[in-house]
Amino acid sequence: MKDLTALRDEYQQLQATGLKLDLTRGKPAPAQLDLSNALLDLPGSAELKAADGTDIRNYGGLQGLAELRAIWGDVLGIPAGQLVTGGNSSLALMHDCVVAALLTGTTDGPAWAGQSIKFLCPAPGYDRHFAICERFGIEMITVPLTDDGPDLDEVRRHLADPQVKGMWCVPKYSNPTGISYSAETVAELAAMPAAAPDFRLFWDNAYAVHHLTDDEVEIADVLKLAANAGNPDRPFVFASTSKITLAGSGISFFGGSAANVKWLLGHLGKRTIGPDKVNELRHARFLPDADAVRAHMRRHREIIQPKFDAVLSILDEELGDEKGVTWTRPAGGYFISLDVPDGCARRVVELAAEAGVKLTPAGATFPYGDDPADRNIRLAPTFPTLDDVEAATRGLAVCVRLAVSERA
Amino acid sequence: MKDLTALRDEYQQLQATGLKLDLTRGKPAPAQLDLSNALLDLPGSAELKAADGTDIRNYGGLQGLAELRAIWGDVLGIPAGQLVTGGNSSLALMHDCVVAALLTGTTDGPAWAGQSIKFLCPAPGYDRHFAICERFGIEMITVPLTDDGPDLDEVRRHLADPQVKGMWCVPKYSNPTGISYSAETVAELAAMPAAAPDFRLFWDNAYAVHHLTDDEVEIADVLKLAANAGNPDRPFVFASTSKITLAGSGISFFGGSAANVKWLLGHLGKRTIGPDKVNELRHARFLPDADAVRAHMRRHREIIQPKFDAVLSILDEELGDEKGVTWTRPAGGYFISLDVPDGCARRVVELAAEAGVKLTPAGATFPYGDDPADRNIRLAPTFPTLDDVEAATRGLAVCVRLAVSERA
Repeated sequence: MKDLTALRDEYQQLQATGLKLDLTRGKPAPAQLDLSNALLDLPGSAELKAADGTDIRNYGGLQGLAELRAIWGDVLGIPAGQLVTGGNSSLALMHDCVVAALLTGTTDGPAWAGQSIKFLCPAPGYDRHFAICERFGIEMITVPLTDDGPDLDEVRRHLADPQVKGMWCVPKYSNPTGISYSAETVAELAAMPAAAPDFRLFWDNAYAVHHLTDDEVEIADVLKLAANAGNPDRPFVFASTSKITLAGSGISFFGGSAANVKWLLGHLGKRTIGPDKVNELRHARFLPDADAVRAHMRRHREIIQPKFDAVLSILDEELGDEKGVTWTRPAGGYFISLDVPDGCARRVVELAAEAGVKLTPAGATFPYGDDPADRNIRLAPTFPTLDDVEAATRGLAVCVRLAVSERA
Repeated sequence: MKDLTALRDEYQQLQATGLKLDLTRGKPAPAQLDLSNALLDLPGSAELKAADGTDIRNYGGLQGLAELRAIWGDVLGIPAGQLVTGGNSSLALMHDCVVAALLTGTTDGPAWAGQSIKFLCPAPGYDRHFAICERFGIEMITVPLTDDGPDLDEVRRHLADPQVKGMWCVPKYSNPTGISYSAETVAELAAMPAAAPDFRLFWDNAYAVHHLTDDEVEIADVLKLAANAGNPDRPFVFASTSKITLAGSGISFFGGSAANVKWLLGHLGKRTIGPDKVNELRHARFLPDADAVRAHMRRHREIIQPKFDAVLSILDEELGDEKGVTWTRPAGGYFISLDVPDGCARRVVELAAEAGVKLTPAGATFPYGDDPADRNIRLAPTFPTLDDVEAATRGLAVCVRLAVSERA
């Protein structure tokens, strides 16, 4: 290990190179978006009707076009009748489910607003989930995330509290650690007793088809398991095409029990007269079946896997011997999760920023932006070019070594 | 006037013709949607960037594309910086403003949820506005709508109540009466004292450019008048392209003070990462300036004005002598409002339904679906063909005469 002076020199040299790089957000690269440019010409002015004769240009059709729900029901393993389409953002559907529960209650409980309610937050997790809770004053309880999913003993313990009404889950290629929930974990979450009858799993299956290796993970069917366990309304499933087609112009999906679908449609029907059916037909034409989706995702993988490989091999090379520094090797999704020695994450992010490498703020992966160990850093390698990913990761490694050395 | 037996015979003949017609909703006709079919090919796969270089395909850009806001700011008379774009539904923006105020408060007041709050509802009015209030338990107070807008004495009286937090307004070519607010009315609503500092005008300018005559109505600038009166945050202005381009696939707009724009973006930013910028650029290419919008709306008028004319001339002919039956002659918008003698509206709608002419449920134009005089019926002539509009109106006239005669 180099001494502090040598590391400071190295860091100064890094600063002198004048980097301007950004590893903050999980955005597709332009080359990935190019894969879906055909959407910009679709559906074409001859395409006015859906399969059932619906004029796609007019109002209505609250649940979404049947043919699109059939395709994505197949992809997601959810019957088309249990899917509802939304606009360009599954986050908006999650937000609106929280809002509906707050203001009008769920299928099996009164309005959450006015109650003192809590959500379980496996962490490290997704900052935008936590931001919804924070905005609406929902207390967040951190639950450790293991390699198989949330710590079930902790979850079980908290579910004895009737004020625990929800839990954020990214069950597959989790943001940011990349882990997937084991079949046992899904089964337990679907079945375990909860003091609140209106407890909900906010099941954000954001990376359902976003594989990075040939070992394509399948997760257990939470809707079926919950129904079999007598908790049919427990899971709210979410997905979207944002990281499949065009990030700002995709389709989002809600999946749930028949009762939850009816509940959500009751809410959506007061908010809007229907979704953008032209964009739905556009998507149905572009990716006409589950095989087309899978083939399309392989092309995404060809673009982003080299970036993940680059980050991992540079981390191996630069930090493999650094005590207390570990990182994940995701089999899918959009992130690598880096753990540095306790108390160092904030300093690493600060050093990186001052050297022109923008990282997600330390703490962002925890409720209230507060990583109690100040240890976790989320890396998002998809958007920058391969060269920039490499330069940013080498720069990051310098910052990690210096931060660790400063604390030693 | 025919006797009851003759009218019953006439009604039976009507039933025997086996009509299946629908005058219920304000939907554009297919021929109107055809005017915008070019959108189905746009923006084209060569169009990847906005004027400022933003990749329209990726995440971000919460306020909406600057070039689209410039065009529609010009159309709506609102500075582009004070506009925010939304998805395909301005109703959703209205809903979300109510939700944000309920759960987190406004720029000048705490959360409405937990308070006992009230909205003023000029009536006859738009049922979907009222449905939002009803869903969230907001008490609705009916205010009579005159030919110049809401009865200002009534509004003034109610604004002395600090629990009155909102008021629904369709200031131009009002749904369903077609009236437009006079300049004095707008100025008064912008300036009049309100006990609640967080009182909001929900200013649904749904028919801003939807003229039916050469006398194109201009309404006063509520944002400017409110700002000048020291109430800059009072108006929330809404508009959309739903009845301009494609009804299910348009763009919605929010206009407000700088503080309200910041407030709304704070809310939207927790809900989504940005709007559908591809659809925004698509719209900016299709209708590149305010003149193009105006020319486009003249083509709409060519299609729908004959339908309005047909309804009006048949009503003149068939019901001109019927005591206590009156209707509006709108200069724009999507509706004709028919008043029948007190206590007859429900019966007219029932008779029409049994003769195969579907009308908007009687009462729908009033809060809680309850027209206390049982008098008002909303007619929506845009969607059916001209022949169907004529047949439906003649059938309606038979039903009106029979219902009136039954009660006599």
